[in-house]
Amino acid sequence: MTNGHGQHTTSESGDSTTYATTRHGYAIHPWKLTRSGLMPDEIAASETLFTLSNGHFGMRGTLEEGEPRAVPGTYINGFYEERPLPHAESGYGFPESGETVVNVTDGKLIRLFVGDSPFDLRYGTTHSHERALDLRTGTLDRSTEWTSPNGQSVRVTSRRLVSFAHRSLAAIHYEVEALDDNVYVALYSDLLANEQNAAPSSDPRDAAVLERPLKSEASAARDQQAVLVHRTRRSKLRMAVGMDHVLEVPQGARTTIEADKDLARYTVTAQLPKGSKLRMVKYLAYGWSHRRSGPALRDQVEAALAVGKLIGWDELAAKQRAYLDDFWEHADVEIDGDPGLQQAVRISMFHVLQCSARAEGQGLGAKGLSGIGYDGHTFWDADLFALPMLTYTKPQAARDHLTWRRDTLPQARERATELGLHGAAFPWRTITGKECSGYWPAGTAAFHVNSAVADATARYVAATGDGEFDRGPGTELLTETARLWMSLGHFNTDGSFHIDGVTGPDEYTAIVDDNLYTNVMAQANFTAAAAACERNPESAAALGVTEEEVAGWRRAAAAMAIPYDEELQVHAQSEGFTRRDEWDFEGTSDDFYPLLLNFPYFQIYRKQVIKQADLVLAMQLRGDLFTPEQKARNFAYYEARTVRDSSLSAATQAVLAAETGHLELAYDYWAEVALVDLGDLHGNVDDGLHIASMGGSWQVAVSGFGGMRDHGGQVTFAPRLPKELTRLRFRIRWNGAVVEVDVRREDGTDTATYRLVEGESLSTSHHGTPVELAGEEPVRLAIPAPTGVLPVTHPARRAPTRRVPQR
Amino acid sequence: MTNGHGQHTTSESGDSTTYATTRHGYAIHPWKLTRSGLMPDEIAASETLFTLSNGHFGMRGTLEEGEPRAVPGTYINGFYEERPLPHAESGYGFPESGETVVNVTDGKLIRLFVGDSPFDLRYGTTHSHERALDLRTGTLDRSTEWTSPNGQSVRVTSRRLVSFAHRSLAAIHYEVEALDDNVYVALYSDLLANEQNAAPSSDPRDAAVLERPLKSEASAARDQQAVLVHRTRRSKLRMAVGMDHVLEVPQGARTTIEADKDLARYTVTAQLPKGSKLRMVKYLAYGWSHRRSGPALRDQVEAALAVGKLIGWDELAAKQRAYLDDFWEHADVEIDGDPGLQQAVRISMFHVLQCSARAEGQGLGAKGLSGIGYDGHTFWDADLFALPMLTYTKPQAARDHLTWRRDTLPQARERATELGLHGAAFPWRTITGKECSGYWPAGTAAFHVNSAVADATARYVAATGDGEFDRGPGTELLTETARLWMSLGHFNTDGSFHIDGVTGPDEYTAIVDDNLYTNVMAQANFTAAAAACERNPESAAALGVTEEEVAGWRRAAAAMAIPYDEELQVHAQSEGFTRRDEWDFEGTSDDFYPLLLNFPYFQIYRKQVIKQADLVLAMQLRGDLFTPEQKARNFAYYEARTVRDSSLSAATQAVLAAETGHLELAYDYWAEVALVDLGDLHGNVDDGLHIASMGGSWQVAVSGFGGMRDHGGQVTFAPRLPKELTRLRFRIRWNGAVVEVDVRREDGTDTATYRLVEGESLSTSHHGTPVELAGEEPVRLAIPAPTGVLPVTHPARRAPTRRVPQR
Repeated sequence: MTNGHGQHTTSESGDSTTYATTRHGYAIHPWKLTRSGLMPDEIAASETLFTLSNGHFGMRGTLEEGEPRAVPGTYINGFYEERPLPHAESGYGFPESGETVVNVTDGKLIRLFVGDSPFDLRYGTTHSHERALDLRTGTLDRSTEWTSPNGQSVRVTSRRLVSFAHRSLAAIHYEVEALDDNVYVALYSDLLANEQNAAPSSDPRDAAVLERPLKSEASAARDQQAVLVHRTRRSKLRMAVGMDHVLEVPQGARTTIEADKDLARYTVTAQLPKGSKLRMVKYLAYGWSHRRSGPALRDQVEAALAVGKLIGWDELAAKQRAYLDDFWEHADVEIDGDPGLQQAVRISMFHVLQCSARAEGQGLGAKGLSGIGYDGHTFWDADLFALPMLTYTKPQAARDHLTWRRDTLPQARERATELGLHGAAFPWRTITGKECSGYWPAGTAAFHVNSAVADATARYVAATGDGEFDRGPGTELLTETARLWMSLGHFNTDGSFHIDGVTGPDEYTAIVDDNLYTNVMAQANFTAAAAACERNPESAAALGVTEEEVAGWRRAAAAMAIPYDEELQVHAQSEGFTRRDEWDFEGTSDDFYPLLLNFPYFQIYRKQVIKQADLVLAMQLRGDLFTPEQKARNFAYYEARTVRDSSLSAATQAVLAAETGHLELAYDYWAEVALVDLGDLHGNVDDGLHIASMGGSWQVAVSGFGGMRDHGGQVTFAPRLPKELTRLRFRIRWNGAVVEVDVRREDGTDTATYRLVEGESLSTSHHGTPVELAGEEPVRLAIPAPTGVLPVTHPARRAPTRRVPQR
Repeated sequence: MTNGHGQHTTSESGDSTTYATTRHGYAIHPWKLTRSGLMPDEIAASETLFTLSNGHFGMRGTLEEGEPRAVPGTYINGFYEERPLPHAESGYGFPESGETVVNVTDGKLIRLFVGDSPFDLRYGTTHSHERALDLRTGTLDRSTEWTSPNGQSVRVTSRRLVSFAHRSLAAIHYEVEALDDNVYVALYSDLLANEQNAAPSSDPRDAAVLERPLKSEASAARDQQAVLVHRTRRSKLRMAVGMDHVLEVPQGARTTIEADKDLARYTVTAQLPKGSKLRMVKYLAYGWSHRRSGPALRDQVEAALAVGKLIGWDELAAKQRAYLDDFWEHADVEIDGDPGLQQAVRISMFHVLQCSARAEGQGLGAKGLSGIGYDGHTFWDADLFALPMLTYTKPQAARDHLTWRRDTLPQARERATELGLHGAAFPWRTITGKECSGYWPAGTAAFHVNSAVADATARYVAATGDGEFDRGPGTELLTETARLWMSLGHFNTDGSFHIDGVTGPDEYTAIVDDNLYTNVMAQANFTAAAAACERNPESAAALGVTEEEVAGWRRAAAAMAIPYDEELQVHAQSEGFTRRDEWDFEGTSDDFYPLLLNFPYFQIYRKQVIKQADLVLAMQLRGDLFTPEQKARNFAYYEARTVRDSSLSAATQAVLAAETGHLELAYDYWAEVALVDLGDLHGNVDDGLHIASMGGSWQVAVSGFGGMRDHGGQVTFAPRLPKELTRLRFRIRWNGAVVEVDVRREDGTDTATYRLVEGESLSTSHHGTPVELAGEEPVRLAIPAPTGVLPVTHPARRAPTRRVPQR
């Protein structure tokens, strides 16, 4: 650790120290995800978890030698193919074509032959095989010792990176060491387009798999370098990928280079004396465009390769480390008492960073660039679950995503018009900004995606004070989303404002009137838009905003309907929700979950069964609207009816569990959130990472146990520790300052210490007590015990697993 | 008229008398639909309107010579092909394959060549061309005088029938008369399979058009007879069609017969002296099976052809006439004051009879056997809009349809299980009984289809006293539908019974809680099921019905929630409906109707805009639940929000308009209902007839202006005439009796005369006054003026056209 506040001193002395092996074969380590051996059933999962990405492009963690493999994906952010969206019965406004992520040309292939045998761990003898994703070096490392079927032994080590510093570059440092005498080796370093993919499944959450999406436009090879240029058939996007090589062989080697339409190959053959090493650095550059010509793209990747070679492997690796050192310095979350959780939270944060760091002009997808799940689409959860972490730790990445949202406003305005609405209607799922949802009750009707964009915008502006963004994209996004709500809602005769016939976050309840979450988020949207327009009168004028329009937003916000059940003394998730029939949880066995795969929508929709936090999410994001007593009652009511069939639920439940004093429950949920992919809790890690859940891991730390809230442009804290943890330390950025919150249990007493790591001063609060920070002077305060805690229950068999700290 | 109570004495003296020509080119005639000339734009519409059918099979009214034509359809009831139902995003319980009606082998083709020229009205000179659908003879007649391009003139007359008496038989009496000397003629009398069809449209109400659905299995020809046997590719249904011919030619003719896979042809060539006639009777027999072998089916149609030839044309025609004489004797509705409406109502009744008379084991489709609209599917409206007419005029046909429903109970039970429900869930749309709906919010969620089956069952039993049916299919249908409701609804903590998350008849409002229509129909279903089980204890025991189960039905019925808006003093179509936003009718121009083709569902669903009578239909079918004041207020409220984008609306609006004293409005609606296809009011008559609307034409007469209700097993009347009509006379069957209601205006005084035409006695009522009929003694009563009439308004531009009597 470079910033000196690491807890796990063992990690300082040696990276190979591990605590234990998780049940999924990964070793626990504070800064690494490592696994030994090759387990056929876990190949797809490890490919996902070992993904390297910089937000511009990503590579799944397949082995260099290509096989065995499950899904050898390489994805470029924004690079997609169109596909028809068929409808058994079509309707007005149903999208007729969708967008799906393309597995682009695979550059990570280095096929190795030892004597006559392909290097393939399924044959011969594997003496050791270790892989590790290193969260500080930003590399995927592997080391394999293997004897070929005909008895020749080699040690293969590789280190791979997708550069944070150089957006279009990746590099692989590859070494073969002969462990026997006179080992003949051949290496095929490939670029391979239109790689075969796995068969599609029937799970609706999966993606459409495209057959041979890429059409060759050009291929060229010379020296150690080759470039392939391809174009998609329908979306007409062009991409180029190039490779170049630097080779070190003790006794020289024969090399050839060739390029055909879908395959370029650099071949190296050499004879290795025992103990000698063949070392090759493979540089890769990816570029794409919907405008630029093939030759221009080719020049672009060739230039990037030249830069890569000039910088060289060592410098690229050093820059990667430096980038991450800076990130962890400002972002790290430290946990004492549960090393497994510590690891999982850092892996989560690493992946969120990886899929957003250099996106620059493209959105943040639900799976990052780690798989084809959800077709590579971006949803609302990018804005609500991943962006908070980025806003408070890597604000430029949050700004990039929001700038992409701004760039897609033309499509969102067009969609609003098509739907008979004003302002902008952001798509439920998309790559380019065009609506790609094929099921409108959980797509078009989920207008709350607009409030997610607005919420993220207001949060970014409040947390960064980025005036340029505020005046430009910020005010535009807030205005156009406020306009949407104004045209979507209506004033009743009694003067109250209602939003009918929409779907909130809970996808097990659809097309309802006055979804509380939607209403209060629209209310915040109105207020934020009004404030932005008043703050930036010139921007507002350019958008045609009048005083009357702003007054209308304020009036609607003030009159917003908030459903409440007087009899039960709880808020209603939507109008009438609490009067609906209860789900028969007792009669629903484990294998009927997730319910959406086993029950028809109409059954799920009309009962009090909740897929994911909805009203509870409202209590997090609009916590200022609820009294502590209401929060406790609401949490208990909805907790008993929430089945968490969505990975978007546990993080929010953890945050509110912590706030309402259920610290053990919050801790259980935290583990569930942080381990969603490491533990494959939703059974689909093969298709890619759950980026929102990974962002949620950070939220549970900071907003859950840290109690951080940012209502009304203020940042406040209310930290508490569960009994299993003895310390939680995190840092967040706030308007140029960096504040550290250090929550400890010492001698049975819990305290929180607030300290400015950067910046001059900060006004905040601790459990409601004002705290003024100035300079580096820490403020240490005792943590009050929770009060007013109500008992909570869970649907039968749906309580989270009790977390036992994993050492 | 055989029963002597015809009003249009001109029709008695000569069938060729017509009153006027409608704007669509059809002449007004009390017993015929005739048109002169060939209008290219009207070909598809006339093919639909001139359809001949007996409920077993149907032939669209294409010309014998084949061209010009639009959709040369021949359809066999129940004969379908499977097709995949694609879903952009699939979900649990979404049907993966659908069923679509097949255009089977065309037997009506008799291609004529005059000299060298094909007889084609688009070439040469047409001197006269008349076609007529005769409602009393049950034939489609044509007469054409034509000169070929090379100057030879002929008169072609044909008469075609699809036999009511002999279910598998059709026949065509075809004559060619030479108007010049020595005219050489050739006739190709064909059976043609896999006829080319028109291109599919993008209208979701259209059908999937299948390419070459039939696979040849056998073909045979000898003498004047040929048979083709085909099988569908996926559904594996087998069909056979045979033709045989009787030829009369003055100077002899050369004939050949041949049969290939998809074409069988009987060729006649002859030379005709001037004034002589070639006369050919073509017999056709259709059969199909999912079980029987090709040879067995071939034998079946050959036997039918042999019977047809033995009976001969004259006898077939006489039986056709006799069947219809009997039907009209018991069913005719006579109207004085609007000959156009008289014609339209009779045509409507004729087509309802045609599509149901000999269905025997198959359902009654939304388009009958007249086109491929809606894929040939049967919906709820068969039970609710067509069956009342059949129940009171042709009860055997109603029984056939309900027996088909009973026969599909296995599929309906399976569907209920799949949906997690008990009892039977009848499909929203189907041919075989399997759910084929591709859009669940307006398919699966429309559970009221089950109450339609139950309502029709209870009505049939009450109106006929058919004990055998009651004990068997009746009790079974009522029990299984009651069980569905019991599992679909739930008791709230306050004891009331609710049915949440369903869609009522109004397809512009979906997935709502406590749709009033659904609830009160389910209530009636419970009551009818309980009564049937108590009436038929052995049947109930066989179905496993216990006393507790019946008690549960009665308790649910008693506790049924009925939404009412206390503030507005109207019933709510569903919970919260009256609090929803209003549709901007002023801002919606004509070309935005039907709304479903121009607005997204979510917009339509969440506003107070109604596609079709829903609560108003509840006030017809459950009129005993509402006070006259409530009816008047509800009618006014919903009338102002109903746009009639469905052809299923106007009939119901007419019935309630009449009941609430809006007699002129009811009259306007009646015209709209009766002319839906004659006037092509929905722009899609090309795709087939609106059978439900045609059944609705009868309902407006009998339940609207006749005021007939059948609540609680009693039949009552409350007739009134609009000012444009001076008389309305109709007859209905009731438990073996036939009662005639004769409503007249004489000297400004309106009276109704009730008379038993058959039967011993009948207790009924007239505007609430008890009437006891005994023997043939008529009872004449004065008609009271309406009271408590409230003003009604309509959405802008959606009021019905003011009807001007058409003479």
